[in-house]
Amino acid sequence: MTVDKLKALELHRKARGKIRNYPTINVRNEDDMAMVYVPGSVFPAREIIADKANVYEYTGKKNRLAVITDGSATLGLGNIGPHASLPVMEGKCLLFKTLADINAFPICLDSQDVNDIIHAVQLIAPSFGAINIEDVAAPNTFTAVRELNKHLDIPVVSDDQHGTAVMILAALWSALDVTGKKLEDVKIVILGAGAAGIATSELLLHVGARNIIAINRSGILGPDNQKMNHYQEELSTRINPEGIRGALDEAIQGADVFIGFSINGRLTQDQVKKMNGKAIVFALARPEPEIMPEEAIAAGAAIAGSSLFDSINPLPNLLSYPGICRGLLDVRATGLNRNILASAAEALKKTVDGMRLCETHILPDLFSDEVTPRMAEVVAQKTIEEGLAIIRPPKGQVYDETWQRLFGGPMTRL
Amino acid sequence: MTVDKLKALELHRKARGKIRNYPTINVRNEDDMAMVYVPGSVFPAREIIADKANVYEYTGKKNRLAVITDGSATLGLGNIGPHASLPVMEGKCLLFKTLADINAFPICLDSQDVNDIIHAVQLIAPSFGAINIEDVAAPNTFTAVRELNKHLDIPVVSDDQHGTAVMILAALWSALDVTGKKLEDVKIVILGAGAAGIATSELLLHVGARNIIAINRSGILGPDNQKMNHYQEELSTRINPEGIRGALDEAIQGADVFIGFSINGRLTQDQVKKMNGKAIVFALARPEPEIMPEEAIAAGAAIAGSSLFDSINPLPNLLSYPGICRGLLDVRATGLNRNILASAAEALKKTVDGMRLCETHILPDLFSDEVTPRMAEVVAQKTIEEGLAIIRPPKGQVYDETWQRLFGGPMTRL
Repeated sequence: MTVDKLKALELHRKARGKIRNYPTINVRNEDDMAMVYVPGSVFPAREIIADKANVYEYTGKKNRLAVITDGSATLGLGNIGPHASLPVMEGKCLLFKTLADINAFPICLDSQDVNDIIHAVQLIAPSFGAINIEDVAAPNTFTAVRELNKHLDIPVVSDDQHGTAVMILAALWSALDVTGKKLEDVKIVILGAGAAGIATSELLLHVGARNIIAINRSGILGPDNQKMNHYQEELSTRINPEGIRGALDEAIQGADVFIGFSINGRLTQDQVKKMNGKAIVFALARPEPEIMPEEAIAAGAAIAGSSLFDSINPLPNLLSYPGICRGLLDVRATGLNRNILASAAEALKKTVDGMRLCETHILPDLFSDEVTPRMAEVVAQKTIEEGLAIIRPPKGQVYDETWQRLFGGPMTRL
Repeated sequence: MTVDKLKALELHRKARGKIRNYPTINVRNEDDMAMVYVPGSVFPAREIIADKANVYEYTGKKNRLAVITDGSATLGLGNIGPHASLPVMEGKCLLFKTLADINAFPICLDSQDVNDIIHAVQLIAPSFGAINIEDVAAPNTFTAVRELNKHLDIPVVSDDQHGTAVMILAALWSALDVTGKKLEDVKIVILGAGAAGIATSELLLHVGARNIIAINRSGILGPDNQKMNHYQEELSTRINPEGIRGALDEAIQGADVFIGFSINGRLTQDQVKKMNGKAIVFALARPEPEIMPEEAIAAGAAIAGSSLFDSINPLPNLLSYPGICRGLLDVRATGLNRNILASAAEALKKTVDGMRLCETHILPDLFSDEVTPRMAEVVAQKTIEEGLAIIRPPKGQVYDETWQRLFGGPMTRL
C-alpha cells in the first residue's frame, strides 16, 4: 500500500498530533470547577485512600493505556530513537481509539537501557490500566515484558510479541482447518527469532505444536548455534525435536508451515517447492515480505499470506491487540498469561464466518466491526477464570458494560 | 464553595475519567490506516531523524503537557500517594484543556524519592512539550524543578511554585496600585515557606521587593531558625534586612503585606491591627484561609483576599498557569526563567480593567476569556526575547497562530 509522502506530511502537520484530549465534563464557572477539581476531586480521592481498587471506579485508569517505546526497533525504520518514534506511537494510539475506544498515550522513552525502561514503566503505572510495550528491540522487549508482568498489578502487553503471536495462531488454525492438517502433526519453520518469532513459538508450543524449528541470523536455534541470546537459548531446548542442523534450506525440507519475521526475499520459490504438500506460507517481513503470496502459491503452497495489507491474506497484528487490550481493561486485569492469549486467538479465528473460510480468507476483514468486541468478551471472561481480574465492584453498583455482557445482567453484590 | 459528596462521586463515576482521547483523523479503511500508521508515519519519522526540531511540526508534542505528581502533597489532603491523586490530576488536566486548550496527561508516580521523580520525567520527556510538576512536597518540588529545568530541553513548570508566585505578584501589584504603595518600600510577611512561599519570595525579590520576612514552622527564617531545609537556608540570607527575630507576632508589627500559605486561623484580627495603615492581607491557606477576608477588613486591612473562590478577591493560581503554559508551548520553549514569570504577572495584572481596579477587584474574573490568550502572548514574546524558544520553523512554512500574532503575519523564512 503506497502513500504519497507530501500528503502524509501535510496530514501530520495539520493534525497537530493524531490524538488529542477531549473533556468529558463541561467547566463553565466556579461551581463546575469546584465539582471537577477542588473540593470535588477530594471525595473520589478519599474513596481511593480507603480502597485502592476504587481508582478504577472514579478515574480514567480503567480505560487508559500507555504505549511505551524506546524507539529501538521502530517498524520498518530500525533504531530511530524516541523523538522520531513519536509519529508512529501516536498512530498506534489513534488505532487503539478507533478500533477499541481505548485512551492510549504515547510515551517515548529517552533511554534504551532495559532497566530504565522497566523503571520508567513501574513509576508511571498508577495512571494506567494497561501497558503496551511497542517496538522495543529483542531481547530487551522480553526482559521488559516479563519483569513488568511479574511486578506490576496491571497487564503488560506487547503487540509485537502477543499481538502477532495471537494473530498468527488464529490464521494458522484457520489454514490448518482448510488444508485438513492438525497443529500437533505439522512441522513449522519460523524464520526470525526476535520479539515476534520467539513469542509466536512460545504460544504455538503452549497450544500443542510439537515440531517447531526456529532460525536466527546464525542458523537453526540449537546446540550448534553460536549466536543466541538468553531467550533463544532457552527456547532452543524445547523445539526442533528432530535435531535438524543448518539453516533455512535444511529446515524447510518437508515443512508444512513457514512463518517469516525476517527480511524481504528470504524465501525462494525453490524452497517452497521443498515443503510438504498443502504447504502454508506466512511471510511477515516488513515493509516487503519474504516471498509474495502469489509467488508462494505459484510454487505450490496451498495457502499464503503476508505483511501487505493489499495482498491476499493480509496478516496484521492490528486484528488482535485492540481486542486483547479491550478485554483486559474491561475486567481491570492484573496480569496476562498464555491461556488468555490462546483464548484470544480462538476468538479471533471464530470471527471468520465458517461459510467464507477458504484458502484466501483465513482471518476476518481488518475493519470488521465484530472482531474487537468478540475478542474482548472472550479475553475478559478468560481473564476472570484465570484469576487475573479485579472482579470486586463496590457493593450494589453496576460494574460496566462488559460485566453485564459476561454475567447477563447488572451486578448487584458479590 | 461546598460540593455535595454523592453528586461529586456520581459525576466522577459517570465521567470514566475527566479527560479522554479524541482522534484528529478518521480511520475508516486500509487506505486511511496506511496514511496514519504505516507507512504514513514513516515520512514524518524520517523528517524528525533529519532534524529533531521537526517533532514539533509533525506530532502532538507541541501541545502536550505532562502533569506529574508523586501524591506527596495533594491539595488539602497531604500525602495520599499516586492512586488517590489521580482524580485531582485528571481535574487539573481537564482545566488545562478547558482554559488553555492544552492536551495534559496525568502521570502519577509510584515513588516519592526525588531522584526517581527526576529520572521518570527525564525518561518520558520526549513525548511532551512541557512538564507541570504538581503537588510534590517541598523541598523535593524545588529539587525536581531546578534539576529538570537544568537538564531538559522543554520547560518544567510548577503551578504550586510558579503559578502561585505569578498570581500573587499580579494581585500584589494591583493592591499596591490601589493603596498607593510601592513594592520596593513595603514590608512583606510570608507565612509558610514551602513550595509557594519560597517561590513567591524569590519572584518578589526578583522584581524589586526589598523587605521580605518569611516564616516556617520554627519561626522567622534567619540565623536563629534551627529547622530550615536547604532552600529556606539559601533564601534566608537574602531577606529580612532588619534582622527581626521570633515568629509571626514579631514579624507582623508594622508590616504592609501579609501573604499566608499556612493553616486556617493562623492570622488573628489583633495581628492585622498591628500592621501598617492600608494593609494588604492575602490568606491562601487551604481549604480554609488564615483569616477570612471580611475579618481582616474589619480589623483594618485595606485589601484582603483568600484561597476561597466565593470570598472577595479570590486568589486562585488557576488564573496564571494555563496562560504561562500556553505561551511556553506556543513558541516551543526550551526552558523557563524569572523574567518570563515576571512578564506573565505583569500581563495578568494588566487584564484587570483600570476602570474596575479597586479594593475588591485586584485580579480578573476566573473565567474571563481574555486572561489566557493575553498572558500566553506576553509569555511567548518574552520567551523568545530570553532566547528560550525554538524560533526556527522549517523554511517557507507558517509556524503557528502565535507566530503570526507575534510577528504580524505569516512566517516566510529566517
